[in-house]
Amino acid sequence: MTEWEQMNDAALQEHYAALARRYEEFQARKLRLNMARGIPCPEQLDLSSGIMDCLGEADYKAADGTDCRNYGGVDGIPEARELFAQVLEASPQEVIMGGNSSLTLMYDLLVRAMLRGLPAGDLPWGKLPQVKFICPSPGYDRHFAICEYLGIKMIPVNYRHDGPDMARVEQLVAADSSIKGILCVPKYSNPTGVTYADAVVEHLAALPAKAKDFRIFWDNAYTVHHLTDTPPRLLNILEACKKAGHPDRVFVFCSTSKISFAGAGLAAMAGSEANINWLKKQISIQTIGPDKLNQLRHVRFFKDRAGIEAHMRRHAAIIKPKFALVQEILAAELRGKNLAAWSNPQGGYFINVNTLPGCAGKAVAKAAAAGVMLTPAGVTFPYGEDPEDKNIRLAPTFPPLAELKQAMELFALCIQLVGAEQELGQRGFRPGN
Amino acid sequence: MTEWEQMNDAALQEHYAALARRYEEFQARKLRLNMARGIPCPEQLDLSSGIMDCLGEADYKAADGTDCRNYGGVDGIPEARELFAQVLEASPQEVIMGGNSSLTLMYDLLVRAMLRGLPAGDLPWGKLPQVKFICPSPGYDRHFAICEYLGIKMIPVNYRHDGPDMARVEQLVAADSSIKGILCVPKYSNPTGVTYADAVVEHLAALPAKAKDFRIFWDNAYTVHHLTDTPPRLLNILEACKKAGHPDRVFVFCSTSKISFAGAGLAAMAGSEANINWLKKQISIQTIGPDKLNQLRHVRFFKDRAGIEAHMRRHAAIIKPKFALVQEILAAELRGKNLAAWSNPQGGYFINVNTLPGCAGKAVAKAAAAGVMLTPAGVTFPYGEDPEDKNIRLAPTFPPLAELKQAMELFALCIQLVGAEQELGQRGFRPGN
Repeated sequence: MTEWEQMNDAALQEHYAALARRYEEFQARKLRLNMARGIPCPEQLDLSSGIMDCLGEADYKAADGTDCRNYGGVDGIPEARELFAQVLEASPQEVIMGGNSSLTLMYDLLVRAMLRGLPAGDLPWGKLPQVKFICPSPGYDRHFAICEYLGIKMIPVNYRHDGPDMARVEQLVAADSSIKGILCVPKYSNPTGVTYADAVVEHLAALPAKAKDFRIFWDNAYTVHHLTDTPPRLLNILEACKKAGHPDRVFVFCSTSKISFAGAGLAAMAGSEANINWLKKQISIQTIGPDKLNQLRHVRFFKDRAGIEAHMRRHAAIIKPKFALVQEILAAELRGKNLAAWSNPQGGYFINVNTLPGCAGKAVAKAAAAGVMLTPAGVTFPYGEDPEDKNIRLAPTFPPLAELKQAMELFALCIQLVGAEQELGQRGFRPGN
Repeated sequence: MTEWEQMNDAALQEHYAALARRYEEFQARKLRLNMARGIPCPEQLDLSSGIMDCLGEADYKAADGTDCRNYGGVDGIPEARELFAQVLEASPQEVIMGGNSSLTLMYDLLVRAMLRGLPAGDLPWGKLPQVKFICPSPGYDRHFAICEYLGIKMIPVNYRHDGPDMARVEQLVAADSSIKGILCVPKYSNPTGVTYADAVVEHLAALPAKAKDFRIFWDNAYTVHHLTDTPPRLLNILEACKKAGHPDRVFVFCSTSKISFAGAGLAAMAGSEANINWLKKQISIQTIGPDKLNQLRHVRFFKDRAGIEAHMRRHAAIIKPKFALVQEILAAELRGKNLAAWSNPQGGYFINVNTLPGCAGKAVAKAAAAGVMLTPAGVTFPYGEDPEDKNIRLAPTFPPLAELKQAMELFALCIQLVGAEQELGQRGFRPGN
């Protein structure tokens, strides 16, 4: 029950008027804040400054003698594959390096599946009457955009506290051979913050999929992005798939976009050796190889997984106060009012908010009208359609604390304003705002 | 007439035996030389050493204030677009930056055409019963590999001294709406060395193509790669297409792979503003943007087109002696024997050799058997099928002069050996080698 369901009409109207006045004060400040995307702040990028000049002019040789300035190496230099094998919990033979974007690796792989098919499949997906993917939702809008672009029909499946609703996932994939994949952000999921439980990972690996080329696209974007010293452990999906007798089922993606530089990092993939060998041949049609000097820079700078983990603690020191501030403001403004529920994630880049049904779009629009750009409501669902219009993704890492404070106070106000408007509307009033 | 057509059988057999003894001497040297690909040598790469550390830790801001370390900028930073606008003879609004490979830009564009279609087309090419491309041949094997991968049927068209046989090209494109494109390396063409004449460029721009989404893929890979101080001038195809009323017909590609670093350079595309705006939207599904720090490095290092041109003169100083040596050896060993004809290019990376019909594959195999790996015969034609088995691509830039000398002497010997074997065979003898 919301706080004002107990108010009489006059009290509610007075309450609403007070909220509206506060909102007008915000508008008068003429804010111009953007919290739409999960991007690192300059102080986080400064942590990796050393990457920019860590290669001397004569430091261009990989461990195997490869001149990293020249052509070649479609799979990456050995020491980069070794570094990412540590991050991805795979063997170096199960790793292939990409360019600066894991999104591109995923897009390119899906394109190959559409145009040429995957090893286990009979036909390129593009030759089938329909290809469907399971999309745990809310999820990552750029994943959904790729599927929409490629004409892959998305089937949303709800999140539970421990991952996607696996009973529903199994029911779907066991019955329909046109379901070819599932898109997962398994750790500190974007935006829910959920880390998949062991049982969920094992269930995914063992799913009795009707499509023999059913694949798990495992975007482990936040694998080392902890906000706590006791991070949850994600089960190794490569191992789980091997144990379940489906070694080729999973493709794992990661990047250093939120470790080193968002615009100039490294992406990598892991999969079974069979998958990686197949991929190498496929990729060699598209490129002679990714930027090996950038691989060398990253290896020189981070050295090994321990180096990355130490670096991520420095990231956490910068962004933890921002996540804490959001919690503080949401609690101060909204706790006990039953207008919204929100996550308190142990890692990743987002705080997930669920408003009352029908309120997310209006709240985001109100924030925008007062100068704070949030992630557009709806985009966390396939086709931009949040069935209950209640999910909002907050991305607190980029703004300085002072701006974040203003933005969050405005956001909490917008939630209350929209909630009050809804209650007034249900009582037959039309708020003037 | 070959020199030995005038020899009697005994003289020819003696001549052949002498050649075979020389070949055995080469085999005894146990050479291990690779001239298969056109790649820069280490001394060329050293010319760009300054790129590796030209960005200080605090030098990450683009002219418009963009933090090049962070996300964004799908089209590239303004100063990189400006630099490539100068190279590509376009306006910055007609340029979009890629990653480290123009091959990838071309592959990705063709993939988009297959999956989604081009702006002027009715259907994605992948939905059509057949898509065909005109492939001036001999040409670039990696272009052909992309077409084959995507199921695009390749139609070879012969080269003339001034470009593709345009009468044949016009005849084909005017008659067949399934012909959607032509693949051109218009300057110092790989491997012929031909620079398209103005009339050829204008003819391409004006072609009465039956397919309304007919496109020219203009891989200007060697645009500034001169071996002479008086380089031929290539007509501006963007302008020519505008004048001919087909402003959207051409996509122009280039990269710094053979200017800065083959493995860590920059690629860029040019096209009409309509094409570039369309592309930006398409590419934003695949990536949040290419590596902007590498763009900034290149801008800092080269500054402008004049900087690139000065740099290319330093490249030429390194590789001209290699091209000259090949000319010298081919002349010394093969001139007047009517066993082969070869190009003397004014730029680019290749020397084009045509043997007697039926001899290219055997000559390349003989060179390989004595430890010198050349570009495989046939790959310069679509589907790897040289109809006359006579074309061989020589790539002299990578090996040091001493190695190049041995490799070319062996190559010229192999040409003679295979020619003599053929003549002996025609006289009913079976050479023992």
